[in-house]
Amino acid sequence: MRPLILISNDDSLTAPGIAHLVRLMRELEAEIVVVAPASPQSGMGHAITIGHPLRLDQSDIFGEGVTAYACTGTPADCVKIAKHYVLEGRRPDLVVSGINHGSNSSVNVLYSGTMSAAIEAAIEGLPAIGFSLCEYGDAADFSHVGPWVLEICRQALAHGIPAGTALNVNIPKNAAGPIQGIRLARQARAKWQEKFEQRHDPYRRPYYWLLGDFVNKDLGRDTDEAALAAGYVSVVPCQYDLTNYGALGEMAEAWQLALPEGGPAATPPQPVASEDYGPAAQ
Amino acid sequence: MRPLILISNDDSLTAPGIAHLVRLMRELEAEIVVVAPASPQSGMGHAITIGHPLRLDQSDIFGEGVTAYACTGTPADCVKIAKHYVLEGRRPDLVVSGINHGSNSSVNVLYSGTMSAAIEAAIEGLPAIGFSLCEYGDAADFSHVGPWVLEICRQALAHGIPAGTALNVNIPKNAAGPIQGIRLARQARAKWQEKFEQRHDPYRRPYYWLLGDFVNKDLGRDTDEAALAAGYVSVVPCQYDLTNYGALGEMAEAWQLALPEGGPAATPPQPVASEDYGPAAQ
Repeated sequence: MRPLILISNDDSLTAPGIAHLVRLMRELEAEIVVVAPASPQSGMGHAITIGHPLRLDQSDIFGEGVTAYACTGTPADCVKIAKHYVLEGRRPDLVVSGINHGSNSSVNVLYSGTMSAAIEAAIEGLPAIGFSLCEYGDAADFSHVGPWVLEICRQALAHGIPAGTALNVNIPKNAAGPIQGIRLARQARAKWQEKFEQRHDPYRRPYYWLLGDFVNKDLGRDTDEAALAAGYVSVVPCQYDLTNYGALGEMAEAWQLALPEGGPAATPPQPVASEDYGPAAQ
Repeated sequence: MRPLILISNDDSLTAPGIAHLVRLMRELEAEIVVVAPASPQSGMGHAITIGHPLRLDQSDIFGEGVTAYACTGTPADCVKIAKHYVLEGRRPDLVVSGINHGSNSSVNVLYSGTMSAAIEAAIEGLPAIGFSLCEYGDAADFSHVGPWVLEICRQALAHGIPAGTALNVNIPKNAAGPIQGIRLARQARAKWQEKFEQRHDPYRRPYYWLLGDFVNKDLGRDTDEAALAAGYVSVVPCQYDLTNYGALGEMAEAWQLALPEGGPAATPPQPVASEDYGPAAQ
């Protein structure tokens, strides 16, 4: 049976990156449904739209055989409305988001709309992958990404993705040289060193532009940044359980607070299978 | 020396919840600086503003002794501009966000603007806490929260918060009865069962409202939901390293992919102290 693949992104339905992803998913002989933002949503993190409604407009942008919609919401909204309205309860075999124009490695995963679509799908119990190319701009070169994206999607379809987890895949830019392979990695402990530049509008009122340099002082060789620097595609399994289990015991001692009932909970519990949420959630 | 406390939220500078938080922080004899969104930002997750600049308007809303600004960005933007512009490099001793009108327990932490302000502060290496009251609306009753908020802030100032971690504090509503105490907890594996309601505008074009029921099938007694249901204030230490370390080994085996260089990385590395990022980040 043909797999059902749901595609979204954060750069909008008309971005080159999502067109490449749709073209690649055709090679998997999948049924393809696309629900992507009507306007660019970079940096939207895991935002959702509350307080006003969404619009959904069908599009033939990808030609025959691909059902596509532009949604006026965020990437997380797109996955929600795809799952609960467009697909009318059918469960995709795979959800892919991207291909983002620009890296979402390290701490950028938190700000990433691309990854929020994947994580939203993981919350729904769906296998999900966010793909990003480490090259910004509309002119980004996607010509080398095909085999790597396809290999990762084939493995996900064949072997699944651990429960409660979405994959954050980053691909080195083509100009960096031939890709060495695919490497599992942890999120590097890097961050942005930011500053704000003050300017004045023609009415002499100040406004502020956010500027920043990405700084990685995490020297671990097991990070996504290290894998990318060595020419590998990095794959970080990302969870949406934010609990710092190690900190629970540390805080119980230092703060003299009650530990959770039922024990110290020093290790993560086993994820609940999505089916446990009942048919209404699926 | 008086501690320096930075306050933000997601319900905007004029929400009752932040006024309660400012009033409570005065009791700690702290120097207080507030940078909060100019308009409500609920559900904004960890969104940041890129592509257009921010405005910052000073306000005397909290009266004498409190420096306050409304910022046109998201909660994460507020913390960034507070840290890098308003405070001119001074490091707050504590960052508090809220008090949110409505629960941010369980998976809601991902969508929460309140918690994104706290997590942004944690990324900057600052001790940070997001406070939420499990009661929605402008008429929410904050009259019982004082001793619990103060106790948690005093402990944070005295004992610190584990590195790489922000606290997600949820407080039962007053109508639920007397609070039993403070309990450390893990994030419950609950989710929203969502649906979309289709309506038509006066021009016969459809639009869609997101509706949902919060469903908790996680029966663990060590969750934030269980603590709240038992009448306790729940405290979940939240990390921004999303790596699912357990999944790295699982995937290396099932997918036959290369493990990260330097070993299996099956356990989280020690967080880097914020100072390791160098003075420019502080």
